[in-house]
Amino acid sequence: MNAPASPAAVAAPLPADLLAALQAAFGARCSTARAVCEQHGRDESVFDVPPPQAVVFAESEEEVAQVVTACAAYRVPVIPYGAGSSLEGHLLAVQGGVSLDVSRMNRILRIAAEDLTVTVQPGVTRKALNEALRHEGLFFPIDPGADASLGGMAATRASGTNAVRYGTMRENVLGLRFVAASGEVIRTGSRAKKSSAGYDLTRLLVGSEGTLGVITELTVKVHPLPEAVSAAICFFPSIDAAVQTAMQVIQIGVPIARCELLDTNAIRAVNAHDRLGLKEAPMLLMEFHGSEAGVAEQAATVQDVAADHGGDAFEWATTPEARTRLWAARHHAYFAGLQMRPGCRAVTTDTCVPISRLAENINASIAEVQAAGLPYFIVGHVGDGNFHMAYLLDPARPDELATAERLSAQMVARALALEGTCTGEHGIGLHKQRFLIDETGEAAVALMQAVKQALDPLGIMNPGKIFAG
Amino acid sequence: MNAPASPAAVAAPLPADLLAALQAAFGARCSTARAVCEQHGRDESVFDVPPPQAVVFAESEEEVAQVVTACAAYRVPVIPYGAGSSLEGHLLAVQGGVSLDVSRMNRILRIAAEDLTVTVQPGVTRKALNEALRHEGLFFPIDPGADASLGGMAATRASGTNAVRYGTMRENVLGLRFVAASGEVIRTGSRAKKSSAGYDLTRLLVGSEGTLGVITELTVKVHPLPEAVSAAICFFPSIDAAVQTAMQVIQIGVPIARCELLDTNAIRAVNAHDRLGLKEAPMLLMEFHGSEAGVAEQAATVQDVAADHGGDAFEWATTPEARTRLWAARHHAYFAGLQMRPGCRAVTTDTCVPISRLAENINASIAEVQAAGLPYFIVGHVGDGNFHMAYLLDPARPDELATAERLSAQMVARALALEGTCTGEHGIGLHKQRFLIDETGEAAVALMQAVKQALDPLGIMNPGKIFAG
Repeated sequence: MNAPASPAAVAAPLPADLLAALQAAFGARCSTARAVCEQHGRDESVFDVPPPQAVVFAESEEEVAQVVTACAAYRVPVIPYGAGSSLEGHLLAVQGGVSLDVSRMNRILRIAAEDLTVTVQPGVTRKALNEALRHEGLFFPIDPGADASLGGMAATRASGTNAVRYGTMRENVLGLRFVAASGEVIRTGSRAKKSSAGYDLTRLLVGSEGTLGVITELTVKVHPLPEAVSAAICFFPSIDAAVQTAMQVIQIGVPIARCELLDTNAIRAVNAHDRLGLKEAPMLLMEFHGSEAGVAEQAATVQDVAADHGGDAFEWATTPEARTRLWAARHHAYFAGLQMRPGCRAVTTDTCVPISRLAENINASIAEVQAAGLPYFIVGHVGDGNFHMAYLLDPARPDELATAERLSAQMVARALALEGTCTGEHGIGLHKQRFLIDETGEAAVALMQAVKQALDPLGIMNPGKIFAG
Repeated sequence: MNAPASPAAVAAPLPADLLAALQAAFGARCSTARAVCEQHGRDESVFDVPPPQAVVFAESEEEVAQVVTACAAYRVPVIPYGAGSSLEGHLLAVQGGVSLDVSRMNRILRIAAEDLTVTVQPGVTRKALNEALRHEGLFFPIDPGADASLGGMAATRASGTNAVRYGTMRENVLGLRFVAASGEVIRTGSRAKKSSAGYDLTRLLVGSEGTLGVITELTVKVHPLPEAVSAAICFFPSIDAAVQTAMQVIQIGVPIARCELLDTNAIRAVNAHDRLGLKEAPMLLMEFHGSEAGVAEQAATVQDVAADHGGDAFEWATTPEARTRLWAARHHAYFAGLQMRPGCRAVTTDTCVPISRLAENINASIAEVQAAGLPYFIVGHVGDGNFHMAYLLDPARPDELATAERLSAQMVARALALEGTCTGEHGIGLHKQRFLIDETGEAAVALMQAVKQALDPLGIMNPGKIFAG
């Protein structure tokens, strides 16, 4: 995390004609109420900027196009808003403008069980989708910690605990509809599993963080619920032992479905938050999907690897209820962790490295944070080489923020030296723009900006994100 | 397939200064010899156009940049050339220019077995890579019929028989280096398994058919050789029965590694070409990867499904030699098929539809070709919803080409109505440009062209492909 792009001191007020037009079209669904704007002007990140000057709640693709077209006419920024769970400042109105809230576009349009695809509006959340899919014997695997919207998850190229086996939004979005900066509706992809038809606009939009258009519909892959699922936890004498186990499991090709690390601090937090009574030691939380025999076989292999690294015997969550309880605790870990230091705010890292370099990255990061004396905890999608270290900061102490920024920058520099990325799943947003340049080079970023300029010549789509506005 | 963009009647000769500069820099590796140019001006497609005016054999990224920079200065087209196995006219010099042959850039730069990644130059072929990987217990799954180069496979978003389980080039390229139209070298991606760092330039280049830059290096995923592999063939009373079996296998979530259809005509062809003595009936050729127990379990499930559709008992290829023989025959099927009508040329279709619509697409396509009386054969990656019908045409009979074009257009129209794509893995090239518009709409294609214009403002990178030049 580096310093945020400095926001325009105070954004100019919205042109009166634009506001009048939006209010005429949307009535109460166009709000300038302070509370509504403020709620739409923050996210889970650590920085504050002025809120958007208006919020429009769109209920259809036509309405999205109407808002974008109107804003384009006045060169006013449009900031797509889904569930508000970004961690990287994606929703902050650094150049003012209109927050375009698509959370009411929350219909599941089609479940094509026979093709393992579903088509949804962008405001559908991952939990709502899975609730609907359960009755079909299907599930959607991408699960960031929050109950994010699918539109937002596509925009940040999100992943989560199942990505080690099922991939990220990159692999699971088959096609999209989006409203471009021109107000035009663009279709990408199809329901076919693969295609070589022209440029991959689907994956250009996935991860574009609202800077190229507003996603209005998504067709995603879903997966049959496995015949057998088993979850196990395993405690280790050290973080390194747990990480070495995860690394080896991936290297030998076990098709593990989830492979999550919680450090002792995170365990304490989830014990306090979810009353779990787990042993306070570094832990892997794993899940195996397959046939009964296949699951048993995978688990036996992993138990052997864990034992080689001093891991305890697996403790099994055999019932769906026990599994749900464990995974809910994992998904709460971030918020549980925050509560370990009341009143704190968190800066969360997101580096991802080739699996063989993961231990090196984690071990050095721990040494650095301990030397600096900042409270922290670690959760990690270690099967992917990705982990999050959350630094818990006292908002009244700017020195702590400065320390966290220094540690974060050191960790990113190391991850890049280890041939990894500054962000596995959270995105660039406001705070990693310098890291993006460090990672891919000035020339590649200039090329991204050329794409941005070609698709959004007026610069109205979520300006100031990914690149300095 | 629709009519090719009409080539400039005769391309203007290369500027003398450009040719002199290239000859001074590359000596004998810059050729204007008629045979060399003609060999680089054709591919496996059905159309002829004038060859490129020169061929440069580059041996390094620096040399690629040098050629692109020189051509940019004279606004002369650059046509990247790998193994020459395109099926869609990608290599044809429709606007003249320089064929940039990277086949000598064929070094495997790094095998990172501990991370399941390899880094290669673009001229490395899939067979050469797998030969090198075998000793490491790894394999690279993407296998178009020809021994294509990895650069070309990335450029066309290729797939093949393993894609049903392991994905296509879209899923297996982690990062690239390419020379942009400006001559600049761009890096994309990293060796991390996932990333949310900015626009997905990797996947913008994958499938760009040489129109956005020349790929000079690729980092791809590789996979551990499975503990157990078994291949089986199964004969069916009808094509429909075979296709229904494939559909159901996918729908119930069997992680089958390969699931290929050959119709009776294709069987006759491979019998003649590879002396296999297979029963002349529609056949699925399948492969299962996993543990010994897992493979047995998958195969038993699929055998049950096949029996429900009247399939025979599986015949097993248990030894590696027997498996290799079968898969070699499958990979030869296209060339074997051509030999069923001596002197013929083939037009090959490539539609891909959601799995539930596959039988409808294949059955209707067969009815149409039989009504038209054209010789044909079918091979198909049916687990992906993708199949190829090859129409075998007498080059002396333009009416046959016209009939093939009509049938192909009907099939594409049907595939699009079934929510599929005009091309699963061959690309748009010269001949599917109208289909691309039909598939994704004028607005999406205009947006692709805006990206092209932004990255290649002079229009020198393989002009006339994907879109009319």
